[in-house]
Amino acid sequence: MESSVGLGEKDWLACCGSVKFAKAMASAGPFSSYQEAVSAATDIWFNKVDVNGWLEAFSAHPQIGESPSKSHKSSTSAQWSKGEQSTALATATESTLQELYEWNARYWQKFGFVFLIFASGRSMPEILAEMKRRYQNRPIVELELAAKEQMKITELRLSKLFSANATAASTTQY
Amino acid sequence: MESSVGLGEKDWLACCGSVKFAKAMASAGPFSSYQEAVSAATDIWFNKVDVNGWLEAFSAHPQIGESPSKSHKSSTSAQWSKGEQSTALATATESTLQELYEWNARYWQKFGFVFLIFASGRSMPEILAEMKRRYQNRPIVELELAAKEQMKITELRLSKLFSANATAASTTQY
Repeated sequence: MESSVGLGEKDWLACCGSVKFAKAMASAGPFSSYQEAVSAATDIWFNKVDVNGWLEAFSAHPQIGESPSKSHKSSTSAQWSKGEQSTALATATESTLQELYEWNARYWQKFGFVFLIFASGRSMPEILAEMKRRYQNRPIVELELAAKEQMKITELRLSKLFSANATAASTTQY
Repeated sequence: MESSVGLGEKDWLACCGSVKFAKAMASAGPFSSYQEAVSAATDIWFNKVDVNGWLEAFSAHPQIGESPSKSHKSSTSAQWSKGEQSTALATATESTLQELYEWNARYWQKFGFVFLIFASGRSMPEILAEMKRRYQNRPIVELELAAKEQMKITELRLSKLFSANATAASTTQY
């Protein structure tokens, strides 16, 4: 059984750190499938969550290359974040990491939020190149791009949530 | 003489309530003409000020149809705002005002910032119709539209600033 029965606001918040998003998902559910949850999440994220909610969700991410802080609101989100960055960290050298930190600061200075990228499976040089390219963007363009990256991250996390939930449900039912 | 000599951060802030904007204008100036100031302001507003700065500038405006609060950061801005809304207020009835207040609240609820419109010369029914139309927009679309309206307001205010400054300068020089 792959439904969202048993999942709540806290779980949606681990997928995307906007409270407005999590509450809207809780109201829209339960969902009978992962696909249904993704459709709802996409609609809510792009059409219902305002720019303050987008910034709130962005701020739930650590800077890329850094560990989520201990004070992180969602421990599930912190754990997922680490996994999503594993390829990047495995392909990092001391000098690319140094460069990454500098560009993180520069990016934040220009845009006022953390550099967001769907990092799963992407190497450090790839991420650095993308960061330098995106740094050239106008702030409004970058805001929308970041929101699209967040949606990709949300989708991946929803899939993890659904498989974990299916496992838990089957364990409970037998 | 129509230059920006004598104008400072406080004056730019009255045109557009983002501190980042005002500081950047102060660094970019002095400007030898109104046109030069508008070019710099447009570049700064759309390319340098981040989304937090946009929201900060929006929050310097009263809700449309309402007086700027007494605690308003810039008294010049508050006074200009009143003038810009004079046509709207002259064409308002009790019922359109009531409708406006309701839509102000609805708009805020959806977008998380005040409804911004270049109001000079626009009647209340016209503004209400525009508000209802724009309410349908996605948050990111509306954010960019609001920023464009802010830029129109900024241009108008810059022109007022330059003519006041020219008058002051000629008074001083004779």
